[in-house]
Parts: sequence; C-alpha cells; structure tokens
Amino acid sequence: MATKAYAAQSADTPFAPFEIDRRTVGPHDVQIDILYCGVCHSDLHQARGEWGNTLWPCVPGHEIVGRVTAVGDHVTKFKVGDVAAVGCMVDSCDHCASCDEGLEQYCENGFTGTYNGNNVDQNTFGGYSEKIVVKDHFVLKVSHPEDQLAAVAPLLCAGVTTWSPLKHWGAGPGKKVGIVGIGGLGHMGIKLAHALGAHTVAFTTSESKVEAAKALGADEVIISKNEDDMAAHARSFDLIINTVAASHDLDPLLNCLKRDGTMVLNGAPEHPHPSPTVFSLIFARRSIAGSLIGGIAETQEMLDFCAEKGVVSDIEMIAIQDIETAYDRLLKGDVRYRFVIDNKTLANG
Amino acid sequence: MATKAYAAQSADTPFAPFEIDRRTVGPHDVQIDILYCGVCHSDLHQARGEWGNTLWPCVPGHEIVGRVTAVGDHVTKFKVGDVAAVGCMVDSCDHCASCDEGLEQYCENGFTGTYNGNNVDQNTFGGYSEKIVVKDHFVLKVSHPEDQLAAVAPLLCAGVTTWSPLKHWGAGPGKKVGIVGIGGLGHMGIKLAHALGAHTVAFTTSESKVEAAKALGADEVIISKNEDDMAAHARSFDLIINTVAASHDLDPLLNCLKRDGTMVLNGAPEHPHPSPTVFSLIFARRSIAGSLIGGIAETQEMLDFCAEKGVVSDIEMIAIQDIETAYDRLLKGDVRYRFVIDNKTLANG
Repeated sequence: MATKAYAAQSADTPFAPFEIDRRTVGPHDVQIDILYCGVCHSDLHQARGEWGNTLWPCVPGHEIVGRVTAVGDHVTKFKVGDVAAVGCMVDSCDHCASCDEGLEQYCENGFTGTYNGNNVDQNTFGGYSEKIVVKDHFVLKVSHPEDQLAAVAPLLCAGVTTWSPLKHWGAGPGKKVGIVGIGGLGHMGIKLAHALGAHTVAFTTSESKVEAAKALGADEVIISKNEDDMAAHARSFDLIINTVAASHDLDPLLNCLKRDGTMVLNGAPEHPHPSPTVFSLIFARRSIAGSLIGGIAETQEMLDFCAEKGVVSDIEMIAIQDIETAYDRLLKGDVRYRFVIDNKTLANG
Repeated sequence: MATKAYAAQSADTPFAPFEIDRRTVGPHDVQIDILYCGVCHSDLHQARGEWGNTLWPCVPGHEIVGRVTAVGDHVTKFKVGDVAAVGCMVDSCDHCASCDEGLEQYCENGFTGTYNGNNVDQNTFGGYSEKIVVKDHFVLKVSHPEDQLAAVAPLLCAGVTTWSPLKHWGAGPGKKVGIVGIGGLGHMGIKLAHALGAHTVAFTTSESKVEAAKALGADEVIISKNEDDMAAHARSFDLIINTVAASHDLDPLLNCLKRDGTMVLNGAPEHPHPSPTVFSLIFARRSIAGSLIGGIAETQEMLDFCAEKGVVSDIEMIAIQDIETAYDRLLKGDVRYRFVIDNKTLANG
C-alpha cells in the first residue's frame, strides 16, 4: 500500500517527501490513518545518524495517534473508526521472560522499533507518514476526547517513559518525587507525578522556568545551580526522575535522595556523565537506575489514567514541511514542550 | 582506665605502643577484654591519612571479639565472662528514621565510629588495644565455639558489609549472585551467599584464584578479563556485590545483570570508576547501588546465622608488633583473606 511519508535519506540530507510501501493487513494487524505524530528528540538523533545505527532512508515518529481504517480477521480489540495509538514498539519476541511479564521494552531478543527496527525482514518506518499497519498487541486504545488527540500523541513516548519509572518506583501520595529537566519528558514527568498524588518537585537550571513548572503541577521548584537550595533539600527525596540527556554532575542530585532513594536516568547522554562518587551511593544505600520507555500494558494503563485525569501534553502543532525548523528549535530547547505533526499536511507534498 | 594500645601518631609515623584512657563503665556500658581484632583495609586508609579526615593519634580496629569483664547497672543483655563483639559503630543518635529502623549505619545525624569517631567529646580508639568500653546496644553476642573466636572477628566488618546487601537485595535459593573480588570482603561474600543458598559466582581477574574461590563456596568462577566468559553470563545475574575498591570499568559487570538486577558497590575507590554508560542501565532497568556495613540488628542476625552454619573468616593471625608488615602485605593483596591481631601480644609492648 503506497503511503506518503517524509524521510531523511542520509545523516546530512534534509527531510523530503518519500513514498513507502505499507504491508497488506494480516489477520492480527490494525491499519491506521495517522492523525498526529509527536516529535521526539530520538527522531532527531536517529535521522541525523548520531547513534551510528541508522538504517536509511529514515522515517521517524513513534508518538502516533490515528483512526483505525481496517482490521485483520483475528483482531477483536479494535474496529474501523476507533481512535488508536502506536508508541515506540511494533513487535517483540513474545516468548521471553520480559515479554511474558508485559515488559516488551526489555524483550530479551530485542523489540522491533516503530522506526529503524532491524529484526524483521525490512527496516520499519514510523509516524512521519499517512498510514501505518501494526500488529494488534502493539496498538493502544485512546479514550481522550477528539479535541485532545494531538496532545495525546506525546504520551506514547514522553508520557510512558516517565510514567513507567514513576509507577515502578512507587510514586504516589506521601512520596517526594523530583523531576530533573523541564522539556518533552520532564514536563510529562511533572504532570504525571502530580496526577499520581506525589509531592512533586521540579529541578531546573533556569530561573525563567519556575512559573512554568508550577503551572505544570510542581509543588516546588529547585534551581539546581543554587547550592543553598540544594542543601535545604538534602536527603529528602524518595525518587528522582532525571530526564536530562546532556552530561551533568549527578552527585548534587544523588545527595538530595533519602536513604534507599533512587535516581532514575531516562536520558542517554552523547558523552557520559561525570562518574558519580561511590560515597553518594554508599552512605545512604542510594541507587542509580535506568528505565526505557514502557511496556504495552503500562502504556495502556497510562493512557487510561490520563484520559480519566484529563492529562495531556503541552504541544505546538507543526506541518510536516516545518520539520527541519522544528529540529533546529528542539536543539535550542525552544519548544513548550513537544512539537506534534499534523499529519494531514503530508497530503501537501 | 589506662589501656595499652598501638597508635599511629601521624600519616607517616609507624605504629608504636601508646596508652589510652578508657572511660569508667557507665550504667549502660559493657567493658570488654579484647581477644582478637581483625585488620580491615579501612584501618590502613585511616592510619595513613588517605581519607583526609584522620584524628591523631589513630588507634584503628573495628572487628573486635573479646570477653566481658564488667557491665553497667542497667545492662541486661551481657554478664561478666560472656564472649562479645564490637563492629564499626559504638554510638548513633538513636532518634532518627534510620536508627528507628535499626539501620544505625545510615544514622541521619552520623554514627560514631569505633575509631576516628568525631561526634562525641573526644576521638574514639578502636580494637588495636587491650580493652574497650562500649554502650550495650552496640555490643554483639557471639555464640561460635571458643576455638573459632579469632576467625569470627572479621565477620564484624567484612562479614556484615557483604551480608547486609545480600539480605537487602534478596540473595537466596533460586537467585544467581556474583561476588567481584576475592579479598577480605569478597571471600566473606562468597561464603555468605553460598550459605544463604544462592547460586554463587565469583568474578576474579586472576586465574590463580579459581580453585580458592571454589573452596570458599563459589559454584562457578568467571575470569572477568575473558570476554567470552563474560558474554556467556550476560543478562543472567540477579545481584552482583562488587567489593573491589580499585577503579575499574563497571559496564562489563553491569551487562551480566538480568533485567531489574542490581550491582552493589561495597568498595569506595580512591579515584572514581570510569563513568558507566547509561545504556547499560536503561536497556534492562538495572541499578547501581551502594551499601555501608550493616545495622546492629542485622549484624547480630549474621553472627547467629554464621554460628549455626559454621561460617567464619579465613584468617592469618599476627602479633600487634607485625602490623606494619601486615599493612604492606595487605597493599599487595598478599593475605588469605584477613589478618587478625592476637591482642595478647599487646602485653609485650
């Protein structure tokens, strides 16, 4: 099925119209007309070859919301006309310990990414396109109102990437949770920690973001450059979700954790963080952990929770033709807080 | 009470006889004639000023086994003639969240070390001495047979330092547990993990230690320089206790952890470890944690467990007069696996 898309043909080629061939709907497949697709920083890394593993041409996009236009014979969860979503994964092995537990993101045999997937017979192409065909297990239900669908798209990556560690490490009432960085991931982290009932504290280096962080739901905001402010919060956090991908000193943040507290790294820096001192960990039995997106079951749980609580992302809508400008602005941190592509604009070539 | 001891008077002065003044037994105090005192690597760091916080003169020693010679009016747990032990702590605030939970090693107000303690009215002096007077809460019961008492001493630091994370992170039947480094701490880690019923695997850089590690209780031994060996164990460990204090690359070890596995750092390197890659953590929700000695309740639990299972340290007995030679050998890793001072030798001056 010929499908209009936007692709980067190499690391230094700007995005341009490209036609991809979507597969025929199989018995377990769901075919979706894509309405909106969020723009994740990973899209930029991949399209510009910064991770060294890009398969070209590259059609990014893994924050997809759309409408079901066909379903395979064995699909019972969806029908034509439903609003559906696709996140970062379109397949996994389905028979390892992680898949068995619904944690497909940690599939022992490697999940298939929605784009740049490389364990199927061809590269996968993501949501910078008009249509997509996906195995039903990897398609999510969306119950938000129609007028919020564009703002739902970023929940599929930025949302679940912060939701998964918040839930896994027990964020909720009575817990003090820090979110480091107020970007695409961080702004969702603040909204979700707040909605889960945790005492939510944003860490930012920028005085100018204080009011914005409070508007997102932060109970307190710490300027992390301010040593007095940091000292006042020493040994007080149960959990810190660190969304900052740029290399930075982790020790001042670790020292804000209580005994047995955990700092979860969501961002993968191009250059490693300075090595944390072992003393920061040893003297209070603290942990540094990593967390990757979320499984399908927890993604659905997050979407349902967000629909019930009225949580969506704060977005800026763009036409696909503006993707290079959006990437340039993303690099400067100039977006509040997520670009979302209006996929109708693909029709304009 | 005038007490013979051995002290270092400065970072570059060899140990020499020194007389210390032990306090009169108070209502909650236990007075102990020290029989044996283990030699911990921390003793060397402290006595040679390597941590920059040494109070001089320095009388190290926090692996103490002895006999009770007097008890205060309010002491009910001990009577004269009992065998008793003292580990790394002799006091803590007794009213913080950590003390309330029996985790005095994480006292929010700082515990008082058995030596180099600095939150009391004078420096504390450790077990390189004939007698010690300690608050009853910090004195442990020893139920091993008399002929094992010297080999019990290292349980008070090396033992509980590995016991605490093994228990906290659930080592036991059905779990695969790695111990990195086969020294003072590591040899106890192997014995304790094995006695707890875990599938116990020793990591060493030295082919020559394979048989010794098996003799200690390791089910398998991995030569960590051997990439094929490491690859064969990728994603298979529930828990790794890393006792190596020298700076080393953590990523190959992290990659041996299963999803949700934890590597616990027991050793504090003088120079930081190379920064682990965030990807090692993110792709399997792994954690790096730190752990410090153990609380009083868990130290007693460990001693009782070891008495029941017949677990003691492998030791080499020395006279106090040989302490400098012992330190030199310790620096070369030339000890299997812990030096223990025969405190009778203090009488020889």
